[in-house]
Amino acid sequence: MSVETIDRLVEELNAESTRVRLEVDNFFSKLLAATGDSRERLYEAMRHAAVGGGKRLRPLLTIAASRLFAIDSQRALRVGCAIESIHVYSLIHDDLPCMDNADLRRGKLTVHKAFGEAEAVLAGDSLHALAFEILAHSSTHDDPFVRNELVLELARAAGPGGMAGGQMMDLVAEGQQLDLPAITRLQQLKTGALIEYAVEAACIMAKLPPEARTPYRGYARNIGLAFQIADDLIDHSGDAEAAGKPTGRDADAGKATFVSLLGEERARQQASFLVDQAVEHLSGHGSEANLLRAIARFAIERDH
Amino acid sequence: MSVETIDRLVEELNAESTRVRLEVDNFFSKLLAATGDSRERLYEAMRHAAVGGGKRLRPLLTIAASRLFAIDSQRALRVGCAIESIHVYSLIHDDLPCMDNADLRRGKLTVHKAFGEAEAVLAGDSLHALAFEILAHSSTHDDPFVRNELVLELARAAGPGGMAGGQMMDLVAEGQQLDLPAITRLQQLKTGALIEYAVEAACIMAKLPPEARTPYRGYARNIGLAFQIADDLIDHSGDAEAAGKPTGRDADAGKATFVSLLGEERARQQASFLVDQAVEHLSGHGSEANLLRAIARFAIERDH
Repeated sequence: MSVETIDRLVEELNAESTRVRLEVDNFFSKLLAATGDSRERLYEAMRHAAVGGGKRLRPLLTIAASRLFAIDSQRALRVGCAIESIHVYSLIHDDLPCMDNADLRRGKLTVHKAFGEAEAVLAGDSLHALAFEILAHSSTHDDPFVRNELVLELARAAGPGGMAGGQMMDLVAEGQQLDLPAITRLQQLKTGALIEYAVEAACIMAKLPPEARTPYRGYARNIGLAFQIADDLIDHSGDAEAAGKPTGRDADAGKATFVSLLGEERARQQASFLVDQAVEHLSGHGSEANLLRAIARFAIERDH
Repeated sequence: MSVETIDRLVEELNAESTRVRLEVDNFFSKLLAATGDSRERLYEAMRHAAVGGGKRLRPLLTIAASRLFAIDSQRALRVGCAIESIHVYSLIHDDLPCMDNADLRRGKLTVHKAFGEAEAVLAGDSLHALAFEILAHSSTHDDPFVRNELVLELARAAGPGGMAGGQMMDLVAEGQQLDLPAITRLQQLKTGALIEYAVEAACIMAKLPPEARTPYRGYARNIGLAFQIADDLIDHSGDAEAAGKPTGRDADAGKATFVSLLGEERARQQASFLVDQAVEHLSGHGSEANLLRAIARFAIERDH
């Protein structure tokens, strides 16, 4: 790519990323507006976690993928926010004292630190339910078959066959030395399933038959792993301020990561290889896939 | 009612209740079969909570209500199991040390006591997602509009506008003296929303327009409150063995309940009045509503 092309792609990614962050914040601010009754503390806790902060990678992916199929961007945003709602709930529960026991998240106090543990459990549970309420609502898509498939696949991606299952694998892995296939499988469930869903959701909205989704799933699987390696590298190199949370936690917990298994240099090479593969999957598309290409190439370096 | 009629109703309720318990156990045993990988501990924790024990009131209600509209009983069972999946997840999270800190549930150790706190958080989250996976699956109903409405209304009943919102009200109420309208509102969200959904789900499956659902929602609202008063009476009178969990907890926590506000005698009268009202809502139906009538009249006394 020429320097001009790279500059243009980065500029487009930055503009779109900023727009998506604003729109996601707006969406959650409206959805979680004050209740005027004794549930207010719950809504406050949800807003604390869901409004402001975070790179909003999942909604950005859904919106970028929806461009391939000329899907209405407001609908893509709704679906992206449903996915973000699941992501945020999982962060709240993950941060609990009985899980990662984290004090900081996205540069702010974690929900249980700011509101209490019971509040954090309930705020997570509430965002979990809201994700499905958002998807099943008729304004998400005209076709009820589409809304149904969106719900079904998100439930699978979030549940014991996806994210929650991967979190359990992670829990069981503590103190064990997992090998590369085991780490890959764990990450494909723990973080990969939701990232893959973020791209597949656009295919579902476009009513693509399952066999036509293969390249997009391939793209998502590759960048999911690349992002995980990038996360491991950040945790390893340890800039806590940039990360918005403490770093070096994996090493402290004696957890095997891509970086501990491959070493820093080979981990970087592997991430770069995965990004190339991801972009390769988009070769059938023209400029409408530029945002997806830019996410793959620059989202890792640009942000944490 | 004649003594023969009462005997026949109770007998039918007992038989149906036993059948539903078996079928719900079967459903979860199959759904949560061994995974053969490191998620096994998660599935074990889910089975511990979801298989065996519990009166399965919500699936029983869905199956009983589905008889009014001649809905296939296997479909009603699937929907009932989705509701039970939400109910069980809420019990797991409710029992956590940061919430009710309970050691026993349904006569067994609570999930966090038997498996650990992180496992309990994840098992609850997993059952939460599974509920929506069950509903969105095509074997729940042919019509995608129906499946969508089932998902949408369950998400509302479980989320911050329903059960989770009621749990937060309950949390905020600790140490406060709520009055009767406040307690009623709290219970309508905390336990009422899911019980109401259990009946309304049959109306959704039967494609009843919203205005035709009024009597069934009325029935459900009345028995929801009646059951709550019955629960308060059990907690107050304190037979821990029959309840399968410690009793007297509300009084210990200084919580206002229907019994603390009304006194035991008036609480009993109120429950009985609510049951009469519930049955009144079914006056347009013949024998096909007998199971719903029997649940209203006898489910409180028969079981805990």
